[in-house]
Amino acid sequence: MLKFDKLSLNIPETNKPRVVIIGGGFGGINLAKRLNGRDFQVVMFDKQNYHGFWPLLYQVATAGLEPDAIAEPLRKMFDEDYEDFHFRLVRVTGVNPAAKTVQTLIGELRYDHLVIATGTKPNFFGNKEVQKYSFPLKTVPEALNLRSQLLQSFEQASITKDPDTRQSLLNFVIVGAGPTGVELAGSLAEMRKHVLPGDYPGLDFSKMNIYLIEGMDRVLPPMSPEASEKTHKYLDSMGIAIKLKTLVDTYDGQLVKLKTGETIPAHTLIWAAGVSGALVEGIPAETVERGRILVNEFNQVKGYPEIYAIGDVAMMKTEKFPNGHPGVAQPAIQQGKHLAKNLRRLLKNEKMEPFEYLDKGSLAIIGRNRAVADLPGNIHLGGFLAWVIWLFIHIYYLIGFRSKLIVLSNWIYRFFTYERGTRLIIRPFVRKEEPEKEPTQYVVGNEMG
Amino acid sequence: MLKFDKLSLNIPETNKPRVVIIGGGFGGINLAKRLNGRDFQVVMFDKQNYHGFWPLLYQVATAGLEPDAIAEPLRKMFDEDYEDFHFRLVRVTGVNPAAKTVQTLIGELRYDHLVIATGTKPNFFGNKEVQKYSFPLKTVPEALNLRSQLLQSFEQASITKDPDTRQSLLNFVIVGAGPTGVELAGSLAEMRKHVLPGDYPGLDFSKMNIYLIEGMDRVLPPMSPEASEKTHKYLDSMGIAIKLKTLVDTYDGQLVKLKTGETIPAHTLIWAAGVSGALVEGIPAETVERGRILVNEFNQVKGYPEIYAIGDVAMMKTEKFPNGHPGVAQPAIQQGKHLAKNLRRLLKNEKMEPFEYLDKGSLAIIGRNRAVADLPGNIHLGGFLAWVIWLFIHIYYLIGFRSKLIVLSNWIYRFFTYERGTRLIIRPFVRKEEPEKEPTQYVVGNEMG
Repeated sequence: MLKFDKLSLNIPETNKPRVVIIGGGFGGINLAKRLNGRDFQVVMFDKQNYHGFWPLLYQVATAGLEPDAIAEPLRKMFDEDYEDFHFRLVRVTGVNPAAKTVQTLIGELRYDHLVIATGTKPNFFGNKEVQKYSFPLKTVPEALNLRSQLLQSFEQASITKDPDTRQSLLNFVIVGAGPTGVELAGSLAEMRKHVLPGDYPGLDFSKMNIYLIEGMDRVLPPMSPEASEKTHKYLDSMGIAIKLKTLVDTYDGQLVKLKTGETIPAHTLIWAAGVSGALVEGIPAETVERGRILVNEFNQVKGYPEIYAIGDVAMMKTEKFPNGHPGVAQPAIQQGKHLAKNLRRLLKNEKMEPFEYLDKGSLAIIGRNRAVADLPGNIHLGGFLAWVIWLFIHIYYLIGFRSKLIVLSNWIYRFFTYERGTRLIIRPFVRKEEPEKEPTQYVVGNEMG
Repeated sequence: MLKFDKLSLNIPETNKPRVVIIGGGFGGINLAKRLNGRDFQVVMFDKQNYHGFWPLLYQVATAGLEPDAIAEPLRKMFDEDYEDFHFRLVRVTGVNPAAKTVQTLIGELRYDHLVIATGTKPNFFGNKEVQKYSFPLKTVPEALNLRSQLLQSFEQASITKDPDTRQSLLNFVIVGAGPTGVELAGSLAEMRKHVLPGDYPGLDFSKMNIYLIEGMDRVLPPMSPEASEKTHKYLDSMGIAIKLKTLVDTYDGQLVKLKTGETIPAHTLIWAAGVSGALVEGIPAETVERGRILVNEFNQVKGYPEIYAIGDVAMMKTEKFPNGHPGVAQPAIQQGKHLAKNLRRLLKNEKMEPFEYLDKGSLAIIGRNRAVADLPGNIHLGGFLAWVIWLFIHIYYLIGFRSKLIVLSNWIYRFFTYERGTRLIIRPFVRKEEPEKEPTQYVVGNEMG
């Protein structure tokens, strides 16, 4: 193991304006790409060494894709073609807006412009028990862990003596019917129909239940009522038990208690219910609202013109979006690109331009041949047509992502054949007892810090 | 979590002879495939749910391939087309040859024929310290762990203040110059040349050292002296520091002490030095020699005609192989197929036929365009020709493996482009403190048993 005092950030001094970006998600990479050149020094911090195409993470969890199909090393994205760009795999512990510095586990760094692009983290609404026993789906290790959990449940269901235990292993409760929950439920339903009966000939899959629990009065609440209605119908026809206006009360790893009083015995509860901004210590409390950082139309944090927040962690209230933009990739991408332009304007002593969100529509996939789309101009599509659009857009993105035509063809092949080559149980994965605790040394070698 | 007393093996009773196979490696799957039909009930136990093509595991460790390219779920290989075949993901704890039963964590099972096909495990020759701090490379989690370790070493080398620490992070010591050690060393040297300088522009890769430590007097001791000589030359030209007739004395995670007195400061020591048979409790001690199970020419364990051992765990002494067959895939594959035929002969009251090993040759790859081959007829090839043969055979195998033409094309693409898309650090991975300790309950949910 390596003590932190042996490490330093090791960023070269510079006369150029230094832009420090916290987070290599959609916002961070789109900003950094457009700052390339001779005008800025760009420093990016992330605690993962890769950028992920998270809309497809559910595919990793349901054994459709391996992580490398949806994630790309940040150092590969920002290679030697990027001048004066510095990536550091390190956790940011705080910011000091007065001193204009960022603190990390291994030292601090002065910034001229600070961009917070940290995205979101799961929100358990204070329910520690649910946090302890449920499976979130926000990171690659979590997706791999969930995949192993799903497969182990079937392994164990095939060898249990006790019918109640078997039923509990075959009950899968997904909390939250946003895109992740819906896509996961659909994917599980397809596995139940096409893949699992062949793998587990001794199991009766008519007993496998998929519950989708949602607090609001419709599935896919961020989308249009038309999309919700279609989606509800599709999920119904796939045999998914939907419970609307329902909240989870407690979960001890065995029994899900709903606030309605109903209980579901289940070994697997997947938490896709809510997220809040992944805030950074030191951001003034008055600039935070409902877990997100309030920004003006230039993505600036109030009172700190040299601090910006973009993407999911930011809340830019506009007339059309009084509660901020939807928590999807597009606002983050567009804000990243826009901020790059504004930073260049500042450099030339020009006035910044306000951000305007171009709504390109929303999509969700429920299964093979079935998706829903809300397109600009109040157009709502469903079924095969929406699915073709979903497919086209995701293929388009993945190609732009890294010209990985071959991984892509692999993915298309699996997509069309229902083949799930990656149903490997790769353990161990250990949930940290105290996820919030700061580590005191870097993990090197076989021991955990 | 699920207590073991809630589980049972749940294997249907049968009038057919029951063949219990421990292990889903090369031997186990080739045997099981050929027992398909109406004549046997086949039960396979493995503690992993997949079969792995381990000769390519080093590719997973060096970010060339994702696990799904080299591993295949056993339940998918043995799907509903296999009659009366039962896979159980469970750890075998022992055998009782007198009672003809196999013990597992969740119950025991009577057998008519028992086939031990458990392969090997790393052999640390009793050095607990090396076992604790070194990185073995026998399983998928170990390969992923090593991959993360390699990448984290570069991340940390780029931010350390201390030149000694940096050098220690950039020293990679591989112990054992068998095929795994050689292939790993070659692969690391290629990363150093083609991939890493682009990823870590701030690091001076002329300071990255790859040490290959071997106790014998030549690299690739299982192959011909001609192959060893060629390989040595290739490794030399790739800048790998080879130390022959050298043993590791101690390693505390920081400093490798060799028995020659020399020391190498290194944060990463990869243990590819030796294996011993993965023995099963209850096998009579008199049938074990140097960690392997002695078998006769029918793969029968002495004194127990209904217990067989095949593949790496077996030692069949023959005139040509007085110390048993080489520990590679071919003997396991051939013994698996041969034993299937013999079990069918027994069923028809025919005499079993002795196993004869058909040496198809050995291959090792050192890098792009460079391999060595020992072919039947005392033919020794090197360079590009051997590399083409290596490529052809591995492609052929992977196609037979699961018709994964597309994963394959992905792999070929990366192979030719030096592209390493999978350099993702996926932590956490926790080494079990007491790897030999038996778990007392199954891992379900987020907590480890």
